[in-house]
Amino acid sequence: MSTLGFIEYDKASPEVRAVYDDIMATRKIDKVTNFWKALAHDPVRLKRTWEDTKEIMGAGALDPLVKELIYVAVSVSNQCDYCIAAHSAAARKKGMTEAMFNEMMAVVGLANQNNRLVAGHQVEVDEQFKAIG
Amino acid sequence: MSTLGFIEYDKASPEVRAVYDDIMATRKIDKVTNFWKALAHDPVRLKRTWEDTKEIMGAGALDPLVKELIYVAVSVSNQCDYCIAAHSAAARKKGMTEAMFNEMMAVVGLANQNNRLVAGHQVEVDEQFKAIG
Amino acid sequence: MSTLGFIEYDKASPEVRAVYDDIMATRKIDKVTNFWKALAHDPVRLKRTWEDTKEIMGAGALDPLVKELIYVAVSVSNQCDYCIAAHSAAARKKGMTEAMFNEMMAVVGLANQNNRLVAGHQVEVDEQFKAIG
Amino acid sequence: MSTLGFIEYDKASPEVRAVYDDIMATRKIDKVTNFWKALAHDPVRLKRTWEDTKEIMGAGALDPLVKELIYVAVSVSNQCDYCIAAHSAAARKKGMTEAMFNEMMAVVGLANQNNRLVAGHQVEVDEQFKAIG
Amino acid sequence: MSTLGFIEYDKASPEVRAVYDDIMATRKIDKVTNFWKALAHDPVRLKRTWEDTKEIMGAGALDPLVKELIYVAVSVSNQCDYCIAAHSAAARKKGMTEAMFNEMMAVVGLANQNNRLVAGHQVEVDEQFKAIG
Amino acid sequence: MSTLGFIEYDKASPEVRAVYDDIMATRKIDKVTNFWKALAHDPVRLKRTWEDTKEIMGAGALDPLVKELIYVAVSVSNQCDYCIAAHSAAARKKGMTEAMFNEMMAVVGLANQNNRLVAGHQVEVDEQFKAIG
Repeated sequence: MSTLGFIEYDKASPEVRAVYDDIMATRKIDKVTNFWKALAHDPVRLKRTWEDTKEIMGAGALDPLVKELIYVAVSVSNQCDYCIAAHSAAARKKGMTEAMFNEMMAVVGLANQNNRLVAGHQVEVDEQFKAIG
Repeated sequence: MSTLGFIEYDKASPEVRAVYDDIMATRKIDKVTNFWKALAHDPVRLKRTWEDTKEIMGAGALDPLVKELIYVAVSVSNQCDYCIAAHSAAARKKGMTEAMFNEMMAVVGLANQNNRLVAGHQVEVDEQFKAIG
Repeated sequence: MSTLGFIEYDKASPEVRAVYDDIMATRKIDKVTNFWKALAHDPVRLKRTWEDTKEIMGAGALDPLVKELIYVAVSVSNQCDYCIAAHSAAARKKGMTEAMFNEMMAVVGLANQNNRLVAGHQVEVDEQFKAIG
Repeated sequence: MSTLGFIEYDKASPEVRAVYDDIMATRKIDKVTNFWKALAHDPVRLKRTWEDTKEIMGAGALDPLVKELIYVAVSVSNQCDYCIAAHSAAARKKGMTEAMFNEMMAVVGLANQNNRLVAGHQVEVDEQFKAIG
Repeated sequence: MSTLGFIEYDKASPEVRAVYDDIMATRKIDKVTNFWKALAHDPVRLKRTWEDTKEIMGAGALDPLVKELIYVAVSVSNQCDYCIAAHSAAARKKGMTEAMFNEMMAVVGLANQNNRLVAGHQVEVDEQFKAIG
Repeated sequence: MSTLGFIEYDKASPEVRAVYDDIMATRKIDKVTNFWKALAHDPVRLKRTWEDTKEIMGAGALDPLVKELIYVAVSVSNQCDYCIAAHSAAARKKGMTEAMFNEMMAVVGLANQNNRLVAGHQVEVDEQFKAIG
């Protein structure tokens, strides 16, 4: 059970329901996931988190599928089981194939390895990379 | 200075030079970056790390630019300054615009935030996400 | 089951029991929690960890409730389920309300996000913050 | 230099200036810090991040000083140098003494240690902590 | 259930079976563990990950037991439950006693604490440690 | 400069000097490193941290060199530059060769990679590893 339990739709206040309705309409699903029902204990935070998420994960210079892959990659790197499950499902819905998942995983593994090789050797940034800005 | 210093091309053994040559040819650059010169103290590891990197970051089901974006995203999440500098440059070379960079950053920030909201609320995985496999 | 199992009170050596007794007396509880029963396989470490914890978490310049909030915040950031459960309970006992929990969570989420925005942009420390010390 | 450089006030667009003005007015400072000038490359993200920050860090069930302490604690745990410098300064402005800083640090160190002791021993959550919700 | 499920030996392709056979022969076990059966969805990655692991974890300047202890220490620090369980078992097979495990855990806890004390105080590297290379 | 600056020996209180003297005698060095001089702002914490460190890093079931290698491995994994520099030096003093350092680094890189492969695939613990305790 989640720390504070979940706020189900039929027990929710009108302001929480309004967010739930927008989540379901935007994502074309018929019930909100546990994440939002846990956040709903603080309606202001629920609204802010949903609006940020909607804005950030929507189409832009990057394709929504690429954004989901990045989201999953960070969640794998941070080892957040819930986020991996929920956003892998979202990525599949947007077209992620098994081959794409496996390649994304290989990059995440490699970056985590190389990040530490750099740290352990205390590698200095190359001159040509300092000139940015 | 890196912990063990760098192995420069003209001081390198033939097996290290062979890896350096392949790095420069593959990446179309005329000198290898500090990361590889730090790893070269252990030629077996240098070769293994380069061959893994070459294989993983090459074209496949995911576009090389998408792979670079994922690599940068993980490095930002892990706060590896060298990796952020080097792979942001690589991503720009492959077509990353400033808008793409900013959107990638927003997703990384959001995922890092939401990963912790999930943890703090101990949100359980929704039933529909457990059926995978 | 914990990796090495738990040392229960009635199976414990006198030195372990002495620590258990102090934990129960200090915290006004009638049985020690699993964390301590797992550490008791190494009685010296058990004693050291308990004495450090007692000293650090006690009243001082910061209120014990504030210390618990900080402890929970770090545990949420590190995604340690056991620590979140145990120290959220301790914080509630010391007066943490649901509103406080939710606000603490929002700060943890924000800091995790902004820590990465800083890293990705490689933001330099402002001059006025360098003058400290 | 920050990855994309900084957007200074006199080069900023009206929408970016509006955010800068609100930051300076809210914080009673006469120039914005580097963090905001780096984010300003993406004015929508700048506005969203500032409004979230302002809302989350303001007075509520928790005192603004306690919120700053939590923010610093997470940033120390994540080892974000910029965030530690900037938010330690903010905390001092709100009343953090040296003794408070040192006690906060001790809690952060302890939690980071104990989070791993729990992980290594794979300690299960006590029954009494599961009943929450 | 693992995200993509497991590839069992009798359903595996010849190239996957060849890796499985080498894992079982090298480790003197009669069935491969879940980790490898999850990676087998991508046979190239399976082979690469196994060959890297075999090479890295074998005898060299460091004893295989010391390597397992380091592997467990990193996995504890990263809080990877599966890795802690699997590599603690491997370490025990190579001679890790309960006392060794407890001492390794104490070092991991201490390093995690001190890493943050350093970060919070922004301690500069001593001159004598800069001269390396 | 460290956040609060350093407490030098000639400015230190008798209780701080007593700790400094013990550090120098134990480690056979003629001046304490910056880490301790930063902690000395809180003499109680200085004493506790030093005594814990002395006890944990001393000879036991594990060799002091193995303990230093584990300490460095965790610090590399957490990317703490100061700790990597200081404890690599300590490890070298205790006999760490360049080959040992490189092998330790390879294990740290591998574990960081595999920890994420496990997370991304949500690999369940094998039955034989659950029977421990």
